[in-house]
Amino acid sequence: MKYKQVVIVRNDIKMGKGKIAAQVAHAALASYMEAIKRRPNWVEEWLMEGQRKIILKINSLEELLEIKKRVEKEGFPNSLITDAGLTELEPGTITCLGIGPAPSEELDKIIGHLKLL
Amino acid sequence: MKYKQVVIVRNDIKMGKGKIAAQVAHAALASYMEAIKRRPNWVEEWLMEGQRKIILKINSLEELLEIKKRVEKEGFPNSLITDAGLTELEPGTITCLGIGPAPSEELDKIIGHLKLL
Repeated sequence: MKYKQVVIVRNDIKMGKGKIAAQVAHAALASYMEAIKRRPNWVEEWLMEGQRKIILKINSLEELLEIKKRVEKEGFPNSLITDAGLTELEPGTITCLGIGPAPSEELDKIIGHLKLL
Repeated sequence: MKYKQVVIVRNDIKMGKGKIAAQVAHAALASYMEAIKRRPNWVEEWLMEGQRKIILKINSLEELLEIKKRVEKEGFPNSLITDAGLTELEPGTITCLGIGPAPSEELDKIIGHLKLL
């Protein structure tokens, strides 16, 4: 498939599976909304292909922010998610990054080394 | 908050946290797209309120399908998610149900008894 959406989740902070799922859903939706604005044709093709979503993990905030910088530079729609921190985390904790839908091949040059969550 | 989106995840099938997160992201996005079509004013208000998302669990497919019937009857946008089954699950396994955004109070009459994932 030519397009995919990716969510990268911080693995260095403690979150339960419900918390992770909620943060990933936020990221997927926010990045989708960005993409609708900036790259509507990518979204259309991605939907037709069956809207592939991949959930990856990362070991530090620094690495996550570095990836955000690189996807920004490529012009890929993305959205960094911050938790309100009412339950498990400190308020304002960055939990994950949603990217795309964006072209798979180009995206893999930036995130291809990351492992599945 | 007057509106919320809910994703109900089957707790009677075995899924890893990455699989759960991907299924919940599918459900959140698919239900959002339904809502945009059928209830754009609910979506707008929900976005302004900060797009609250709640992830719940359920113990059987039968109970999940019963809830789908009830939210349909109320006219709430929703989306039942089926996994392609390439990895952890049998192809075609129903994994979760996304509902809304929809009015919180009315929705709670149907799903208020369910526990957080």
